[in-house]
Amino acid sequence: MDYAEESLRLHYAWKGKLEITPRAAVDSKDALSLAYTPGVAQPCLEIQKNPHKSYELTRRWNTVAVVTDGSAVLGLGDIGPEAGMPVMEGKCVLFKAFGDVDAIPLCIRSHDVDDIVNTVALLAGSFGGVNLEDISAPRCFEIERKLKGRCDIPIFHDDQHGTAIITLAGLSNALKLVGKRLEDVRIVINGAGAAAISITKLLLSAGAGHVTLCDRNGAIYVGREGLNWIKAEMAQVTNLERRRGTLADMLVGSDILIGVSAPGAVTTEMVRSMAPGAIIFACANPTPEIFPDDAKAGGAAVVATGRSDYPNQINNVLAFPGVFRGALDARASDINDTMKLAAARALSSLVGEDLSADYIIPAAFDPRVKDAVAAAVEQAAQDSGVARTFS
Amino acid sequence: MDYAEESLRLHYAWKGKLEITPRAAVDSKDALSLAYTPGVAQPCLEIQKNPHKSYELTRRWNTVAVVTDGSAVLGLGDIGPEAGMPVMEGKCVLFKAFGDVDAIPLCIRSHDVDDIVNTVALLAGSFGGVNLEDISAPRCFEIERKLKGRCDIPIFHDDQHGTAIITLAGLSNALKLVGKRLEDVRIVINGAGAAAISITKLLLSAGAGHVTLCDRNGAIYVGREGLNWIKAEMAQVTNLERRRGTLADMLVGSDILIGVSAPGAVTTEMVRSMAPGAIIFACANPTPEIFPDDAKAGGAAVVATGRSDYPNQINNVLAFPGVFRGALDARASDINDTMKLAAARALSSLVGEDLSADYIIPAAFDPRVKDAVAAAVEQAAQDSGVARTFS
Repeated sequence: MDYAEESLRLHYAWKGKLEITPRAAVDSKDALSLAYTPGVAQPCLEIQKNPHKSYELTRRWNTVAVVTDGSAVLGLGDIGPEAGMPVMEGKCVLFKAFGDVDAIPLCIRSHDVDDIVNTVALLAGSFGGVNLEDISAPRCFEIERKLKGRCDIPIFHDDQHGTAIITLAGLSNALKLVGKRLEDVRIVINGAGAAAISITKLLLSAGAGHVTLCDRNGAIYVGREGLNWIKAEMAQVTNLERRRGTLADMLVGSDILIGVSAPGAVTTEMVRSMAPGAIIFACANPTPEIFPDDAKAGGAAVVATGRSDYPNQINNVLAFPGVFRGALDARASDINDTMKLAAARALSSLVGEDLSADYIIPAAFDPRVKDAVAAAVEQAAQDSGVARTFS
Repeated sequence: MDYAEESLRLHYAWKGKLEITPRAAVDSKDALSLAYTPGVAQPCLEIQKNPHKSYELTRRWNTVAVVTDGSAVLGLGDIGPEAGMPVMEGKCVLFKAFGDVDAIPLCIRSHDVDDIVNTVALLAGSFGGVNLEDISAPRCFEIERKLKGRCDIPIFHDDQHGTAIITLAGLSNALKLVGKRLEDVRIVINGAGAAAISITKLLLSAGAGHVTLCDRNGAIYVGREGLNWIKAEMAQVTNLERRRGTLADMLVGSDILIGVSAPGAVTTEMVRSMAPGAIIFACANPTPEIFPDDAKAGGAAVVATGRSDYPNQINNVLAFPGVFRGALDARASDINDTMKLAAARALSSLVGEDLSADYIIPAAFDPRVKDAVAAAVEQAAQDSGVARTFS
């Protein structure tokens, strides 16, 4: 199927992929007086007395804003806020279908960090959480950090953390297959954008001992010329041996390559130079850093990609619906590392006894995923003190 | 029925009066690839080439934001953004039920004019229009004016303009009954908040010759001490004789009283002092400035209130759903006076031959209202040059 052409045709037919459905009737004088004035004054007064009641008397408990500035939409780059909207509507469809979450798409007409932060922070009382989407690095890190400081609801940049959760889940299972431990392996991450940074941080939180980030200019190390602030920050906690060189140099003897970079960035030769039992996550989409057959020709033991037509698809739909479901159910004030690690563990556990080189991560449509992730995240929210009960 | 108690019980049961419904399926690999990646890139690229395509390829064509800061919710005053949410959700239910418009409630955690303006303006690419709601005067005037200057979509403060449209519609019919012309009659408006100011402006646009605004301190006139900027502005175009005195003073010999003020502000004696064939719109809610029986005892020929249990209810649901339906259908860049006047004419026309002192305005549930108002507003948008075709 020509997805592009057919998708365009369907988008003209759909005329929008979302609509609003009322849950209250207003088809009689009495119904109107209960859902609206004068009756509605009573729930308003209850919330005025205790603002947390907005989680019980309005849809806030189940509502998430999906927010973009259109600066890094899919692989299309900075196409503008209106042009990002079809993706945001699609994301909201996924939120409902996979997580039973009511998600509202909002596109912001500014690339200024403080504009975006102010807009979202001022609206935080309308939502139970915020999913940031397709905002370019390194602004996305600053926006998320500032919003977390100002908001009393979870702020979650899915391009970062969703990808990180699923990568960690798949990697944990892949390591079991090759009999290695996260603490011991040498991990090379190619790419230094939103996903790469978040994957690095979560791997370190999970106990990874040796992570090296590479960008177009090769390994990132303390003191390298021209690093932006986030790369400089990451240099402090990665590549502790301060090795220098190209991606190919870094891969020699390494155990794991995680590519969140560009099509064709990795060759069979480069995989061949890695340690035995190499694990390759080639997540560039739709064309991976290296195709699975080429990676295996180089001796890779396990290969994952972002594609649905190969085994082991790193698909974000595995994480964000359950993560937000669990966070909303806990009325969490944050989605923290404890919750992300729990989500990753829940995902990898679902594979269980069926673990094989072609099955390290559940399939996108596995019906167990949402509930398993949601339960783990809700529990982790409670364990880490960010769950809230308002009574 | 005890609306307050039953409404609260229902709000706990509803758990929010709105939800999001997907219009696209994502239940198979192919469906996912069409509604989301990779297919969705194509509609994104179309909108990038021509941002107006967002009206065809996303839900923007039918979506309105309902925005409040919670500063003037119902008659409850400044109860805060979260506490205003049950009203906003209710408003969104009415938008769908009465206008087939998808409306999204947003409450803003600031009373600062520029905060509110920036937030809404930065989101304007997400919506086809903005309905401002329950924002206190005089900030509401400044917010609306600034937003109209910055946004390419209609900005409509319903508390002002919805009320004004319906008032003008009812008044036109009432004047027919008593055989007077808008140009000639002496109109007294009690109240100087959002609704009063907008009613005054629309009556002047419709040709009213003599309007006097009163606030708690009596008639507003040029040079009165302590007027805020909007009252000072209104003094320039009303009460041209610069009369001074109380509401009771102003009513002597007047033809029309429009109350958008406080319960019981008008007495039978005051009505008796008016010219023969007096028209009384006593819109304070739920307790009017004067009850219909008391007004009639004073000789009033026609009485309207905000209540559904008396004839001639001035109910906002008569206007905003059709006004936005028409504006959205025209892809209007504004809702201007031409469109508001057309909406009022459409409403008064629906009464037709059945016009009587107890029937000057259609009933809230009259099924003809939406289409009649929408068609008139769409036509007026075209006539006044704010309709847009993007092809």
